[in-house]
Formats: sequence, C-alpha cells, structure tokens
Amino acid sequence: MNSFGQRFKFTTFGESHGKALGCVVDGVPAGIKIDEVFIQNEMNRRKPGGKYATSRKESDSIEILSGVFEGYSTGTSICMILFNENQKSRDYDNVKDLFRPGHADFTYYNKYGIRDYRGGGRSSARETSARVAAGAIAKMLLKELDIEVKSGISSIKDIQIPNEDLDFSHSSNSEVYSLNKNYDDKFKDAINKAREEHDSIGGIVALKAINVPVGLGEPIYYKLDAVLSNAMMSINASKAVEIGNGISSVKLNGSQNNDEITNDGFKSNNSGGILGGISNGDDINMKVYFKPTPSIFKTQDTIDINDKELKCELKGRHDPCVATRGSVVAESMMALVLADMLLLNMSSKLSNIKKVYN
Amino acid sequence: MNSFGQRFKFTTFGESHGKALGCVVDGVPAGIKIDEVFIQNEMNRRKPGGKYATSRKESDSIEILSGVFEGYSTGTSICMILFNENQKSRDYDNVKDLFRPGHADFTYYNKYGIRDYRGGGRSSARETSARVAAGAIAKMLLKELDIEVKSGISSIKDIQIPNEDLDFSHSSNSEVYSLNKNYDDKFKDAINKAREEHDSIGGIVALKAINVPVGLGEPIYYKLDAVLSNAMMSINASKAVEIGNGISSVKLNGSQNNDEITNDGFKSNNSGGILGGISNGDDINMKVYFKPTPSIFKTQDTIDINDKELKCELKGRHDPCVATRGSVVAESMMALVLADMLLLNMSSKLSNIKKVYN
Amino acid sequence: MNSFGQRFKFTTFGESHGKALGCVVDGVPAGIKIDEVFIQNEMNRRKPGGKYATSRKESDSIEILSGVFEGYSTGTSICMILFNENQKSRDYDNVKDLFRPGHADFTYYNKYGIRDYRGGGRSSARETSARVAAGAIAKMLLKELDIEVKSGISSIKDIQIPNEDLDFSHSSNSEVYSLNKNYDDKFKDAINKAREEHDSIGGIVALKAINVPVGLGEPIYYKLDAVLSNAMMSINASKAVEIGNGISSVKLNGSQNNDEITNDGFKSNNSGGILGGISNGDDINMKVYFKPTPSIFKTQDTIDINDKELKCELKGRHDPCVATRGSVVAESMMALVLADMLLLNMSSKLSNIKKVYN
Amino acid sequence: MNSFGQRFKFTTFGESHGKALGCVVDGVPAGIKIDEVFIQNEMNRRKPGGKYATSRKESDSIEILSGVFEGYSTGTSICMILFNENQKSRDYDNVKDLFRPGHADFTYYNKYGIRDYRGGGRSSARETSARVAAGAIAKMLLKELDIEVKSGISSIKDIQIPNEDLDFSHSSNSEVYSLNKNYDDKFKDAINKAREEHDSIGGIVALKAINVPVGLGEPIYYKLDAVLSNAMMSINASKAVEIGNGISSVKLNGSQNNDEITNDGFKSNNSGGILGGISNGDDINMKVYFKPTPSIFKTQDTIDINDKELKCELKGRHDPCVATRGSVVAESMMALVLADMLLLNMSSKLSNIKKVYN
Repeated sequence: MNSFGQRFKFTTFGESHGKALGCVVDGVPAGIKIDEVFIQNEMNRRKPGGKYATSRKESDSIEILSGVFEGYSTGTSICMILFNENQKSRDYDNVKDLFRPGHADFTYYNKYGIRDYRGGGRSSARETSARVAAGAIAKMLLKELDIEVKSGISSIKDIQIPNEDLDFSHSSNSEVYSLNKNYDDKFKDAINKAREEHDSIGGIVALKAINVPVGLGEPIYYKLDAVLSNAMMSINASKAVEIGNGISSVKLNGSQNNDEITNDGFKSNNSGGILGGISNGDDINMKVYFKPTPSIFKTQDTIDINDKELKCELKGRHDPCVATRGSVVAESMMALVLADMLLLNMSSKLSNIKKVYN
Repeated sequence: MNSFGQRFKFTTFGESHGKALGCVVDGVPAGIKIDEVFIQNEMNRRKPGGKYATSRKESDSIEILSGVFEGYSTGTSICMILFNENQKSRDYDNVKDLFRPGHADFTYYNKYGIRDYRGGGRSSARETSARVAAGAIAKMLLKELDIEVKSGISSIKDIQIPNEDLDFSHSSNSEVYSLNKNYDDKFKDAINKAREEHDSIGGIVALKAINVPVGLGEPIYYKLDAVLSNAMMSINASKAVEIGNGISSVKLNGSQNNDEITNDGFKSNNSGGILGGISNGDDINMKVYFKPTPSIFKTQDTIDINDKELKCELKGRHDPCVATRGSVVAESMMALVLADMLLLNMSSKLSNIKKVYN
Repeated sequence: MNSFGQRFKFTTFGESHGKALGCVVDGVPAGIKIDEVFIQNEMNRRKPGGKYATSRKESDSIEILSGVFEGYSTGTSICMILFNENQKSRDYDNVKDLFRPGHADFTYYNKYGIRDYRGGGRSSARETSARVAAGAIAKMLLKELDIEVKSGISSIKDIQIPNEDLDFSHSSNSEVYSLNKNYDDKFKDAINKAREEHDSIGGIVALKAINVPVGLGEPIYYKLDAVLSNAMMSINASKAVEIGNGISSVKLNGSQNNDEITNDGFKSNNSGGILGGISNGDDINMKVYFKPTPSIFKTQDTIDINDKELKCELKGRHDPCVATRGSVVAESMMALVLADMLLLNMSSKLSNIKKVYN
Repeated sequence: MNSFGQRFKFTTFGESHGKALGCVVDGVPAGIKIDEVFIQNEMNRRKPGGKYATSRKESDSIEILSGVFEGYSTGTSICMILFNENQKSRDYDNVKDLFRPGHADFTYYNKYGIRDYRGGGRSSARETSARVAAGAIAKMLLKELDIEVKSGISSIKDIQIPNEDLDFSHSSNSEVYSLNKNYDDKFKDAINKAREEHDSIGGIVALKAINVPVGLGEPIYYKLDAVLSNAMMSINASKAVEIGNGISSVKLNGSQNNDEITNDGFKSNNSGGILGGISNGDDINMKVYFKPTPSIFKTQDTIDINDKELKCELKGRHDPCVATRGSVVAESMMALVLADMLLLNMSSKLSNIKKVYN
C-alpha cells in the first residue's frame, strides 16, 4: 500500500535512516519536458535545515534513474532517488525499545512485530520527500495546461490569518511559509516560544489550485474532494481536512451557503470549487490541520516493547511545528491528485474519445 | 469509479429515479451468518419519511440476489437490490434544464454532457442507501470479532453537544439521531425553524468504533485515517472530516496533545485511536461536517444548460438537515472501511500467515 | 475478485441456481447510444438450447437497471440483470455432497468451506452470461471507432480448419459456430458422436479483431496480449491461449517468424497484431483452447465432502462441447479488453491530453 | 502499468541503457529472513554471458535500498536496484531511427511518440532482471511454507522432451536450462546452428510448483490459471501459454481428460493442478511458448520513423534463443503469482480470520 493514484500513480520506498528513499512515478504521459532544476527546487522547499525547522542536515539531492530520455518523459516509469547521507543510527540508543508518545512506534511494532527504531523508520516524515519529487513531475504536467497549485500556513496555534487576507504569493518568501507577510513575525514568535519551552505547536495549511478545468473527479467513490482528503490525511501529523468553508458551513443556512450561479460564474465559492465531487471551474480551496509535532523534549510517560513503564526523554533535532514544511508536501499531494484526475476524466464522454482517436 | 475498498470491496449502481439501486459486495469471507432482518433494519434507519426528514415515501425494501446460500455467505459476490417505486420523473419539469445552486447538476452536465434531471440522477443522496446495505454486511463481519460502530449527531447549526456528553446509546432512540437526550428538542427546534423559513441547516456527525484491534491501517497511502476520510468525504454534503481532536489540536502544545502511554493503555485519546495511520487499540473517534442541504425553497439565481440566467424555485420534498440521516451512512462507511482493513492486515506479518496455512 | 478491467471495468454476480445473475459495467463513457435489442441478441447467441448444446431452457432475458437515460449512457455505472427462471435445486440430490471430476466442486469446497451444490453455484458456466451482457456494451463503444471483434470454432477434437480457410463471416450462421461451412457437418458429427457415447470433446476458438488502432496495450504488466490471455483463461474450461502463430512459432527461425515492415504495412502477421504488448495496427489474432466438458454421463471415481469414495453418475443436461458457446464469451471478453485498452491509451502522450483539454 | 499483483505487488522501472533498473516490492509480510546471497544467485541464473546466450557483460549486482532491517523484512516496501554499467548508447547509430522487425520499436514509437533507440529502452528483455529480484523475495515467502517453484526448457525448435521425461532437478546444471540431460547436446546443437546461420530459434519453458496448498486463486477474474497466464504473457517473446495438458486436451474426450478423485488424491493431473481457477493441491504444471528472438543478423525489410523503406542489418550481441534465460524469468513470475495468491486467500473464510485475530 505504498502506492497512490489510479492513472498518474506513484509508489514510494525508503526509511528515515536506510540507504535511500525514492519514488516510482507511473502513468506519466510521454512528451513532457522534465526540468531537473525545478524538481530539485521543490525538494529544497521541503528540506529541513532552516531556523524554524529541525537542524538535521540533509542534502536531499534527487537523481532521476529512468523514464526520461533526452529531457522528455517517455511514458515509462520514472524512478527518482535520494540517498541518505547520515545512515548511522546513532543517537537512538536511548529510545531504542520505547514507544514515543504521539508517534507511530507503538502501532508499527504491534502491526509488524518489528521495532525499526532508527528515526521512525518508514513512518518518519522524511518519507514525504519522495512525495515532493513525484509531485514535481505532476506539476510539470499541470503546467502544460496552465493549472497551478499553491500553499502556505494560514494559522499557527491560535494565531489565524483571516481567509480574505490569505496571500498565496507570499509563502515562498517566508521562512515560516506564512500566507501573509504581516503574520511572519507572529508565527515565528509562536514557533520560537514552543522551541524554548521544549514543546511543539500545531498549525493549519491552506491550499489553492487555480485554472482547474470543470469536470475533474470521478463519482461516486473517487470524488475529487474525497481523494484530496485521502491524500492530505496520509501526510504525517495531519488530523483534519476541510473543503471550502466546510467547518463553518455547519453553522450556516443553505440560503447563505449555496453558491448562486450567473453567466459570469459562481457568485461565491463556499464550495471550495467542488460540487458533487467534481471540480466546477472555480478555484479549489481546502485546509489541512496539523497536530503539534509529537517529538518534544519534555519528559513523558511511556512503555517499552517489554511493557515496562518508563520515562521518554527525547534528544536530537525536531521541527517545533511540522505544519510549515508540511505545506509543501500537501501542495505536492494536491498536484498529484489533480494530475491523476486529469487523466481519469479524459474518458468521461464519447466526444473526448473521438478527439483522441479520430 | 463506483467501487470502494481493496479486499472487502463494494460497487454500487442506480439513479434516484431509475428502476433500481443496489450494490455488489465482493471479498466477503465465506461462513458469515447473513441476517436479512438486520440488513432491512439498517435500511430503515436511513430511510426517509420521518417528521424531521423528507416526506418522500420509499419502502427501501432490500433483496439479496446472490452470494448467500442456506443463510451463510459463500465467498462469492453478494448483490443486493432495491427497486424504486416512484420511477416517474414527475415534478421535475420546472428544474429540467436548470442547475440547482449547491448541487452537482452543473458539474455532472459539464463532465458527462448529459442532463439527467430526475432528482439528481446518480448524484442523489438516494445512492447512499446502497452503501447502507453493503455496510450491513460489513457489520456482520465486524460483529464476529466483537467490533462495533456507532454514530449520531453531535451538533446542529450552532448547538453543540460537548464531547464529554456524547451518549452513543441514545441516537437510535432519537428522531433526530441526537447523541444526548437533552439536546433532542433543541435540535428539533432548529430543524423545524429551518423548514419553516424554507431553508436548511448543517450539522456534525460523530462516529465511534469500539474494540478495534491494534494494527488496522496500511501505511503509507492506505492509512486508516486517510481511508476513513476518503469514505466520509464521498458522502453527499460532507465538507470536512476530523480524527480525534484534530481541529482543536492545532491550538495545543505537543505536551498537551500527546497521549502518554502506561501499562493500562493510553492516558488520553486525543489521537482518536489512530497513530501513524494504524489503529492503536483505543476507540476510533471522528467527526464529519455536513453543509446545509442545498435544496431549499427560497428563490436563488442560477443558469440553465443554455447559459440562460433565471430563478431557481424548488418544490417537492427535501431534508432540511441531511446530517441526521447522513449519520447512518457515515456509520456504514466506517464499518466498510474497518472490514476492509481487517482483511488487509491479515498478511502484515509472517506469523499470521503461518497461523492460516499451518 | 469479481471485477475485470481498469477503466472500462465490469463486476459480475450470481449463481447458476440463485435468484439472478448480472453485471455492473463501470467507466462507460457518456454519450454512447445503447441498443437494447443488440444486447439481447448477444445474449441469445450464447444462450443454451440448440441441438448441439445443453437443452436447459433459459430465456436469458436481460434488463438494464441503471446508467442509461433516454437511450444513451450517462457515464454512471450500468447494471444489467438476468433473473433465473428455474431456481429450484431439483435434480441435484444425487450429486449434493460429491465432487464431480474435472469440476470446481472440490476446490471451492476446500477454499470456502461451503458446498453450494446447485449446478456449480458461482463456478457454473452460466456466470458467463453476465460477461456477454457487459461485452455488448463494450462492442457499442468499439463500434463508434469502427473496431470489430469476431469469433468462431476453428477446431473440434482432431478436426482442424486450416488458418487460411478461417471464414469469420460464417460462424454466426452455423449451429456449431464453425468458421468454415465445409466443416459444419464434420463438427456436428463429432459432437453427436460424443453425446451418443455419453462423453464430451474439446475444441479451439479463434478470435479476430479488426481495425484496432496502433498503440493499445499498457507495458509492462498490462500488455494487450497478457490481458487478453488473462481474460480468456478466466473462462470456464479454457486451458491454453495463443497469440498469432504462437505455438508453431517455436519451431520457426527468427527470419521466418519476424514480420517485415514496408510502407504498405507488415508483410505477414505472425505476431497476431501485437508487438511488445502493444497493438501494431494489424488484425489481432488469437486462439483459445477448451478442454472437453467435464460433465459426462459415464461413471467416474470420486469422493464426497466426508472423504468417502464413491461413483459419480451425472444426469441432466450438458453441452458435449463447451467450446462452441464459449466462442461468444471469448469474443465478449476480447471486446471488453479492447474497450479498456482504448480508454487507458488515451493518456499515453501529452498531445492526446491537449486534444481533450484545449 | 508497471506494477503487478494485488497484495504481494511489485513495481519495476528502468531502461536497457539508462542509469539503473530496479523494483519496489510491496506487501511483503514482516518477519521474513532476507537472504541477499540467494537474491544475487537468482540474478546470476538469468544473467547473460554464457556460451549459449548473448555475450553482453552485465554484472547484475543487486542492492537492497529499503524494507529490510537487521536481516528481516519489516513490512515496508522493499526497493532493489541494479545499476547499468554500460550506459553508453554506442552501437545504436545504425538502428537509431529504424524499426527492427519483430520488435516493440514500431509500437512504442506510435504509442508514445518517442523513439528511445538505446537497446529497446524499456521494452528490452533486460527489464526482466527486476522481476527476478522481486521473484527472489517471493520465493523466500514460499519457502516458509515449503512451496517450491521449478523451471527449465522442455523443447527447442522441433526437439521435444516428452512430458514423462522432464527432470526438474537437471535444469540448474545445464548451460541451456534443459530438463533432461540427454537433451543438453541436442539443444546446444540447435542453438549453435541458429547462431551460425545468423538466425534465432524458439523454445518452450516448462514450469512446476510443488506443495501448493489447496485453495489458491480468486474467482472469477483473478483465477490462478488466468493470472499465471497474464504473468507469463507479459514476458518478452512469450506468445502462448498452457495449463496442464491444455493444448492436447482439445483432442481428448472428457472421460479421458477428467482427473478422477480418490482418497489418495487425483488419479491423474491433466488439469495442471488447477480446477475452476483454484489450486487443487496437486502440482501446478504449465508451459510457456517463446518465439524465436526477433534480433537476427540477416538482412530484413523495414521502415524508419520517417516512413522511409530500408534494410535492417543488426549488429551486436543477442541471444539466439531467449527461451533459455526466459525460463528463470517465468519461474520468478510464477513465484510472484503464488505469493500474491497466498496472501489473497487468507481471507477466504471466516475461520481463517478468527485464527489471526483470536
């Protein structure tokens, strides 16, 4: 179950402290110009190392092994790989047998009967680097159709940027991926405070896709919103997802919430650009809620693999707020879902089929 | 894309005003006692007709066509069918060509090039009856392992039952599927008010699964929480989904949010019973947010299939709050996901395989 | 595992002596004119009752329940159903507990722990009627692109029509689905002789698809020839499959077997129209080898579910040669595979995608 | 479509002259001892370089990148990689734009619009090395249940080892993978003759699986024989597949072909160990028919990508008979199918589920 997607599909592999991580992207149409610099830039956006993230050093240098010939996709599977530089499982002696609260240690051990203590093994957020590589390929396909996906942080702890002030052009300039420059310092302060307290905090990622054609999404069980939710909820530490004004819509009447229609388009976009699980041509808007990083330096109660109760005292380097770099992963997942939906929708009607074969 | 699940898998068919709706459930293990009365009771729980729902009359009488022999599942595909009694597409003349705001009319027409105006066609919530039938089969499997799934309404409009007051034994006795008897009248009042105003309102469904074994969920892209989210977001009118305390966790520190571990289990259950996408043995808790029913009787602006602007004035019978009956659908989807995960998890480790083959 | 196909996908259900059999066809593009008379004619081609088949009477009257509106496919799942008229499990008392040699009784019982003795239950060839219904939908899609699939009997027992004498226009006029009118009587005599001897015989089905565009087939593991083989080998009693001159090619040199290429096309068609798992624009040719019907009236040794050794003495009505009606099933499966491959191939290159979205 | 399998699933990538080839094996149960020496030995069995194969030198040195920890599978995806040593696309100038007869050049170009002339790119038989690596993992799982898969050459050109003389213990000692030592020289002579004539020849691979439990195979569309056929027909140059005595069964009567049953098992094994698509506990026997290698050194007519007619004159190194090394690939595919079927069958009946969860 390390694959995602139906037609534009990717499979990932690799552990936090194994030899390498990577992905195989399958179903990529032939003839797409593959820009390796762009892929590396995407990797760098997610890469740890900044002042507001973990200080773990990873070069995250990506290499394409297959599927590209003379700069273009060939229609065959594209494998991309990322070698781990710090393979040594140092620093883990003190947590080798215990289950870190809030982590997947406990469930992986019980499910698989194996304790891969090296930095969380496959459950480490480092796995998401492979998604970003795959997402970069998806973005190149989307770009051919002028579709763009954007992301950033709309909220950290109780500091919230109002929806009307979200500026998706700002996050790429912000060390904390903030969606409004007036919030950069507030967000930084909150993160710094958590770090100083040896604690962590949560945050909300906002996502937007623009220029999405009408018709993407495959009812009934591969709806655009359902698959986007699946995609987002597969990201480490995400615990809730919302399409359009989903959470606040509960408190509205239908007459307030319905987006009326005119010849100029929809009068509002409460739906987040999706009706009946299908894109309606408006911007796709959604939010993903990230819990506070479970890795904290405060002492916590836990047990080990022998059911012995003990104290968990973590050391090392951790992001005080995973939502920030998580926004890049969420953006990649959105691109991957849209690429898949684009291909799937091609056969929705006979007239499309005739366009291709006649 | 009318199928859901990997091993315990169902496929549905049928339109609101076609001849019949139904499902084919595949991957059902042989040897499960199939209780037809139980299936019909489940259908009745979702059935419209109550005082607080649409008055559309549907007998929703389910018939098993295959896959069951002498009262037990045989391991072959189980087809269940539900004939529509009111097939006539009367009442729809006034909406035949127009797109109802908030509905899937616009997107289906643009995607498929066809306008099936009869009560929403396949996008009608009537489709969910087939899920309830499939879910009843899933529940019979879960019951063999003492797993139980429960649901109800935790919130309507701005009236909210506090989490600590949710009583999952009450909803089956409540006409509005309320999770606390003290809220029944408040919820009813809110629904009645909306109906009288020719409007509609939203609500929140809370779900709980108890006695779920540790280990369900298939990382990385078929995590339990991700697939549950997919399942819930595929239900008509659902717009957000939350695992455990997902939305409020954003405002917590890690030290508050982590569930510490002792030999008696987890000290708290903020995670909603899922860590790293795998069940941890605690109760699974989640919420689904339903927007207000898009069908309202107030006049709204819209266009028709010829891009002509006009007024939408709906008649007929509609639920003022779809969340109520939606809770039964959500519960069914949860049962279906858990059944699938149970089968998938069987091959997680060699020792399980040896148990079966030796 | 009662589904087949990736994009043009069908799911079947139903047992030989249950209430009904049927299929759900998913992924059918919207806008295809659905001709119910054609579907029924296809059903009738496979239907038993002729002089050279079993005399079991089945009306095989098919009914469309969903997915079609005003004569056209809507893009939603199409369910078709076939009610069994003779549901009574009469005649089976004498075989109730025993395993018929050559049949699936033994393996189904051991796999599922259930003995559905009624005419083979789900393993009965009656299941293939649902494939023919699904195949009829596939053919309507193929017809829109002028693709045609044909079939018939090229060999019965040791009587073989030479490849150069196969006449695909004859089989529809032949009671024994023969591919050359000069062989009708020989085939009939062979079948009659087997019947008189209370025995059965095998046969070979030849298949041809014409006007197939270049490019169908999805390497590496969904190759056109691989999936066709899968499709054919899923049919009851098929035991071997051959693409082009596959079996005799073993005895040739490469210089004899390679199809040289000119501007007028390939000089020969030893490949059967498939190179590297992808259609090359030439006719697709293949053969399916059917074993003699396992149901014979001679006494055979067997055991029952209690491991008691006894004699199997079948009564009732059986086809002396299943290959004949099997040709219609094989033809339907070929149509279903080609329809699926047509949809899958649409996203093979960027230029196709731009044709659809620009 | 570079993935195969449902639960024990592998995905491959890589081109003949790209940087690397490899596979990702997903669904491997945790706790299997992974023997790297065994994997390398399997690679070496398929490796070219012998006297009767191409002289192309490839070290085929395999490296495990993920999914294994302290010598055991962890339940996460296992990536294995094989770097190409001779990446230079030398020698291909003379075939750069032309389509080699019998090869996939023509169809890949037409499907994808790209001409990857480097040794066939993804369509090269070198791709099968990744399957052998994946197959080695499957074999380690099978070994835990004492299931064994064997293969070899039963026929080359018109020289055929009778079925009763097939000796599956011999092929591993034979340079030409022969299944009877008395045929080694005959097979060698035939291969040498083809080589001297600048031509190639076909051959037949026989396969056997022993100690397979009853019950493997998932009706109706994932039958064991159907999926084995799919697997075999996905191998380069395979053109026909046969289960048991499939081809000759056509000429038999049912009374000759049925395998009668006693308390000591089946009296014969014409069925090849599969009834109704499910293993019956007897040996699984099948054959795969390989056409003569399309790469020959004789002059052939062809066209190039500009539709210019010209002469194809290949140089370089090629196997005169691909069936020989193909037997190792077929054996690997059989192991992969059986591993998948083992996992799938676990949930066939409730009693199995209770064994795992109680």
